[in-house]
Amino acid sequence: MQIIDGKKVAEQIKLEIAEEVKQMKEQGLKIPHLAAILVGHDGGSETYVAHKVKDCAEVGFKSTLVRFEDDVTETELLAAVQKLNNDSDVDGIIVQLPVPKHISEQKIIEAIDYRKDVDGFHPINVGRTVIGLPSYVSATPFGIVELLRRYKVETKGKNCVVIGRSNIVGRPMSILLSQKAQPGDCTVTVCHSATPDIASYTSKADIIIAALGKPGFLKASMVKEGAVIIDVGTTRVPAPETKSGFRLKGDVDYDEVAPKCSFITPVPGGVGPMTRVSLLQNTLLAAKKSFFK
Amino acid sequence: MQIIDGKKVAEQIKLEIAEEVKQMKEQGLKIPHLAAILVGHDGGSETYVAHKVKDCAEVGFKSTLVRFEDDVTETELLAAVQKLNNDSDVDGIIVQLPVPKHISEQKIIEAIDYRKDVDGFHPINVGRTVIGLPSYVSATPFGIVELLRRYKVETKGKNCVVIGRSNIVGRPMSILLSQKAQPGDCTVTVCHSATPDIASYTSKADIIIAALGKPGFLKASMVKEGAVIIDVGTTRVPAPETKSGFRLKGDVDYDEVAPKCSFITPVPGGVGPMTRVSLLQNTLLAAKKSFFK
Repeated sequence: MQIIDGKKVAEQIKLEIAEEVKQMKEQGLKIPHLAAILVGHDGGSETYVAHKVKDCAEVGFKSTLVRFEDDVTETELLAAVQKLNNDSDVDGIIVQLPVPKHISEQKIIEAIDYRKDVDGFHPINVGRTVIGLPSYVSATPFGIVELLRRYKVETKGKNCVVIGRSNIVGRPMSILLSQKAQPGDCTVTVCHSATPDIASYTSKADIIIAALGKPGFLKASMVKEGAVIIDVGTTRVPAPETKSGFRLKGDVDYDEVAPKCSFITPVPGGVGPMTRVSLLQNTLLAAKKSFFK
Repeated sequence: MQIIDGKKVAEQIKLEIAEEVKQMKEQGLKIPHLAAILVGHDGGSETYVAHKVKDCAEVGFKSTLVRFEDDVTETELLAAVQKLNNDSDVDGIIVQLPVPKHISEQKIIEAIDYRKDVDGFHPINVGRTVIGLPSYVSATPFGIVELLRRYKVETKGKNCVVIGRSNIVGRPMSILLSQKAQPGDCTVTVCHSATPDIASYTSKADIIIAALGKPGFLKASMVKEGAVIIDVGTTRVPAPETKSGFRLKGDVDYDEVAPKCSFITPVPGGVGPMTRVSLLQNTLLAAKKSFFK
C-alpha cells in the first residue's frame, strides 16, 4: 500500500510554479495576478481566502483581495467583477462561495470573464471540459488528475466509481476520467444519493473517488483488494484535544480501508493541498494565456 | 415486452407543436424560424437537411436554407453565421456537419449565438446542461429523455449503462440520466472503446443506451431479463432488395434481445424520429425565448 502524499506533491508543484514566475520576472514579463472577492466574514471562507492569498505570495504571484460586507447588493458585486474583468493586470478572478442568499451565485459566476475564470465554474469552461477542449478545470478534479499522473496510477480501461455528482467535484471528475486521455479512459460510474446499493458498485471498482461529504462512509467491506482510493471528503468534526477544536475527516474509513488498497490519499494531506495548488496552476495558465487570447 | 414507438411519439409531438404554432399565429406572434447552413453535396447531409426543412414546413415553422459549395472559406462561413445571428427573425441556427476539412468545425459551432444554438453543440449549452441550468440539449439525448418520459419508464435509482462517449449522444445522455431529475437519478456507467468487458456492465443494467455505432453489437447474452433498451445506432448496411440499396441497422441485435426486454426501441422507428422532432422542439423553445432573452 502506498500513501499518495498530496502535501508533498503540492509543495513540489509550488516550487515548479515559483521557478517559472522567477523566469517570467527575469524576462521582464508581467507576473501572474489573482484577484479574490470575499463577501462577509464566514470563518471558513475567511480561512480559504487567506490560504489563497498566502499561496500566491509563496510562489511570487500578485494577489488582490476585494472585500464586501454581507449587505453588498448584487449590482455592486457584479460591478466589482466587471472592474476586474476589465483590469488587464488581473489574470484570474475568483469569488469565494457561498455568497449571501440575496445574491445569485450563478449570475456572479457567469459575470466573470471566462478567460479569467480560474475556478472553472463558468458554463463555457464546464462545456469546454466536457467537449475535450482546453479549459480551466475546477481545482479539486484538476488536483486529483495531477496526483494520478504523478503517481503513475494506471487508469486506462479501469473500473472507476465516483461517489457524488456535484458540479465542482463529482461531475467534472467523472467526465475527465472517462475521456480518452492519460490519466483517463476509465469506465466511470457515478453513484449518488439515489443509488440504492453503493457498495455493489464500489466493491468491483479499481479506482474509487469518494466525494459525497459523509465522514467515514467508505468501509473496508465496500472495497476490493488492491483498489486505488481518492478521498475528497473534508468534513470538520469536533476534536476538543486540538487547538482549533476540530479536525478534518474524510469520506473514507482510512484505518479500515488503507490496508486493502494499492494507493490511498489521506485526509488531511491528500486531495486538499492539491486543490489549493490547482488554483495557482490555473492562474499561471491564465497569465500565460494558454487557452484563450 | 413493449416496443417504444418513436415514430408515433414524434408524430404526436409534431401535432402538439403545430397546434402551438397555430395559436402563435392567431395571437399575431412571429412564427418560429429555423435557419440551416449546408456546405457541399454529401448525400447524407443533403438528406438530413431536406428532412429538417420538411419537418419545419409540417409544423408551420419558417425555414431558411443557406447553401455553400465545398470551396467556401471559413471566413465566408463565419460571416454567414454572423448574419443569421444578427437576423432577429431567425430563432434557431444549425450548420449541418461535417464541414469540409479546411474549416474548423469547432470555430463554426462557437460562432453561433448560443441563444440560437438549437443543436445544443455550443460549449455554453453543454456547460449549462452539465450544471443543470436551462439549455438546449442536443437532439438525440433530448429525444431519448422524452421517450422515457412518455413511456413512463422508471429511472430513479436504476443501473443505467451508456455505451459510447460522443459529445453529441453518449456524454450528454449519461449526464442527463445521472442528474436529479425525472427522468433521471440513474446510476450511470459510461462504457467505451477502452472498456475491456462491456458485457460485464450491460449484463447488470436496468437500462442500456447503445450509442457506439456498431451494428448488432448488443447480444441477448449481454442483457438481463426485463431490461430497457434504447438503440441509438443507425448504420447504413447494404440491402440490395430495397429501393435505396441500403437499410438502417441499430447497435442492438433486435431479434435476439427484444424477447428479454421490458421496453425496446426499434431501428428504424425508435430514436431516429425523436432526434428529428427534438430539433423542432428546441426551435420552438428558442422562438419562445424560453431559456434566454
